[in-house]
Amino acid sequence: MVFKKITLIGTSPESFDAATQDALDRAEDTLNNVKWIEVDDLGVEVASVDDPQYQAEVTVAFELED
Amino acid sequence: MVFKKITLIGTSPESFDAATQDALDRAEDTLNNVKWIEVDDLGVEVASVDDPQYQAEVTVAFELED
Amino acid sequence: MVFKKITLIGTSPESFDAATQDALDRAEDTLNNVKWIEVDDLGVEVASVDDPQYQAEVTVAFELED
Amino acid sequence: MVFKKITLIGTSPESFDAATQDALDRAEDTLNNVKWIEVDDLGVEVASVDDPQYQAEVTVAFELED
Amino acid sequence: MVFKKITLIGTSPESFDAATQDALDRAEDTLNNVKWIEVDDLGVEVASVDDPQYQAEVTVAFELED
Amino acid sequence: MVFKKITLIGTSPESFDAATQDALDRAEDTLNNVKWIEVDDLGVEVASVDDPQYQAEVTVAFELED
Amino acid sequence: MVFKKITLIGTSPESFDAATQDALDRAEDTLNNVKWIEVDDLGVEVASVDDPQYQAEVTVAFELED
Amino acid sequence: MVFKKITLIGTSPESFDAATQDALDRAEDTLNNVKWIEVDDLGVEVASVDDPQYQAEVTVAFELED
Amino acid sequence: MVFKKITLIGTSPESFDAATQDALDRAEDTLNNVKWIEVDDLGVEVASVDDPQYQAEVTVAFELED
Amino acid sequence: MVFKKITLIGTSPESFDAATQDALDRAEDTLNNVKWIEVDDLGVEVASVDDPQYQAEVTVAFELED
Amino acid sequence: MVFKKITLIGTSPESFDAATQDALDRAEDTLNNVKWIEVDDLGVEVASVDDPQYQAEVTVAFELED
Amino acid sequence: MVFKKITLIGTSPESFDAATQDALDRAEDTLNNVKWIEVDDLGVEVASVDDPQYQAEVTVAFELED
Repeated sequence: MVFKKITLIGTSPESFDAATQDALDRAEDTLNNVKWIEVDDLGVEVASVDDPQYQAEVTVAFELED
Repeated sequence: MVFKKITLIGTSPESFDAATQDALDRAEDTLNNVKWIEVDDLGVEVASVDDPQYQAEVTVAFELED
Repeated sequence: MVFKKITLIGTSPESFDAATQDALDRAEDTLNNVKWIEVDDLGVEVASVDDPQYQAEVTVAFELED
Repeated sequence: MVFKKITLIGTSPESFDAATQDALDRAEDTLNNVKWIEVDDLGVEVASVDDPQYQAEVTVAFELED
Repeated sequence: MVFKKITLIGTSPESFDAATQDALDRAEDTLNNVKWIEVDDLGVEVASVDDPQYQAEVTVAFELED
Repeated sequence: MVFKKITLIGTSPESFDAATQDALDRAEDTLNNVKWIEVDDLGVEVASVDDPQYQAEVTVAFELED
Repeated sequence: MVFKKITLIGTSPESFDAATQDALDRAEDTLNNVKWIEVDDLGVEVASVDDPQYQAEVTVAFELED
Repeated sequence: MVFKKITLIGTSPESFDAATQDALDRAEDTLNNVKWIEVDDLGVEVASVDDPQYQAEVTVAFELED
Repeated sequence: MVFKKITLIGTSPESFDAATQDALDRAEDTLNNVKWIEVDDLGVEVASVDDPQYQAEVTVAFELED
Repeated sequence: MVFKKITLIGTSPESFDAATQDALDRAEDTLNNVKWIEVDDLGVEVASVDDPQYQAEVTVAFELED
Repeated sequence: MVFKKITLIGTSPESFDAATQDALDRAEDTLNNVKWIEVDDLGVEVASVDDPQYQAEVTVAFELED
Repeated sequence: MVFKKITLIGTSPESFDAATQDALDRAEDTLNNVKWIEVDDLGVEVASVDDPQYQAEVTVAFELED
């Protein structure tokens, strides 16, 4: 049994929880066997968007298939 | 005056705030003189639970009685 | 083009999102050209306030004017 | 569901694996519901023992009972 | 010449060396030109497996082909 | 032989040495076989006390009895 | 909007700037929507090459397509 | 309620405590509502001074006025 | 003698050295007694500029006047 | 009593324990009064050797003679 | 001009300042052109000495002669 | 096969690359079998020199002879 980890940044206009969920949704759309997420960094992008954008950088761990 | 610090992980199906509150509630049920909490790590457990479970690892500081 | 970074701690009785927003509001009231915010630390103050107070220590990056 | 984490240092004259196992054995003798162990530091004590002593500092996570 | 790094977690019921080898074997099965491995974290999963499971989180560096 | 580590914060109106000693005294009053102390953080509390209060956050290592 | 981060090591016989550019060039050849690069580590390989080789380990962030 | 943090380096020919106090004195001369100090780094400058100079790099937290 | 530290991000279309110099120039235009600079982070902004922009986040230390 | 610390990397075709022992053996051949070893990093070199080579980077502490 | 850095641990039965001075004295006895010292770690050894022993691990920087 | 690591700070009036090269040149003048260099810190000294001096703190790894 081997796991792999990748790093995603989810975004949301509303909250850090939603930004984390955004990254998790993306991971589950494209990966099987997602096991857990670690939050690495939280931030808010202000300059290049209309409204402040919550961002959650997360590490996604999933089990590789044999 | 001496403080002690312990590490707890609170959980919630709903949000990181609620997971932090879960750890704080547990600390206040069993410890006197809780002073502050530091959030060490945030994560989401996916594999072993029905719905994603928010987790907040926190350090709880409380004052020891003489 | 030169950016400067400063460190603020926002507070809220309600949530980490609101504490972060509190720091962002303060930054935007007093600084032009705020670009982004990085969350450095989250915590809850318990002892010296009536109700638990969410705190978000953030780094604010803004562009200096020529 | 709340977890607690404590820090132990296991020792062994033979290997880092055995030193880790030493800490895990101690944890399971005195705690219910041990969930996982994280290895924080590895080292070898030379001066104050007859033969080199492998040491493994580990964090033990266990679930608190209600 | 450009290298890429990915993160895997190998597992073994026997030792940290074997868990590291497990991740290395997987890397070499699916990647050409594996150059080196860095061990990022060691741990033992206790709760969700029959016997304690050694885990080694490693970064694998390999050379990209032109 | 297994050691355990706990985290205390000693305080003193006079110096960091005395704040460290304060934590060490407390540890030795309540624990047998204290082996060593690591200083994790030093700070000074200003707002909530009459005079500045030196604080030393320390990790105390002690040997567990069989 | 979700970003992904990967880690590359660019190389150059001439400078750290060129080694960073080497990694950026590779990223832009194979990825759409590269947004920014963070330099994680700089080093010089001496032993296994004819002339010293500058190396730049970088994290590349790019936007995933829907 | 919003706090701001700044970084100062206090100096003293005598001790780390005095170097920390030097930074605290400066902070209180120029800032209202200083709340606490965190010691980030300690060092001794030898070369460019007549006698060794103790240095304490500290972060000063103070409450911003509305 | 008390020093203060601030954090700037200099930018350049050409090199990390020039980005560092950009921050240093700005510091010396507005501050007396700049003593030294520490490079905290290097990066390249790609998305929001015409050509890749080298960025150097630096801490500037300067001596406060009495 | 003054201690000095140096950094060695031991190697072994067999295990991390043996690589650590390799560094310890070297230290004891050339230094008196070796006191303890801290393991800083573990890795496996793959590319430039016939079989994978376990590597243990360790800090060796020894007491200086008067 | 090239500097070298080495790591020493000074000890004292009295204070962290004296332990730091102990390491500095040793450095200046055996090295020319000592420039500065950085304090890496502070601790107190309890078990293997008659009275608690303050320890200061420091990095010593000195200029190499041509 | 055992490697040793030492820490040097190279300097240059011109660039970080040249400061790194300065340290590498020094290492190769006095050590056999230099294998690689890791850049630990970059900085610019301003106050005590005529023109800004680029500094590169590097770790040099070399193979010890039997």
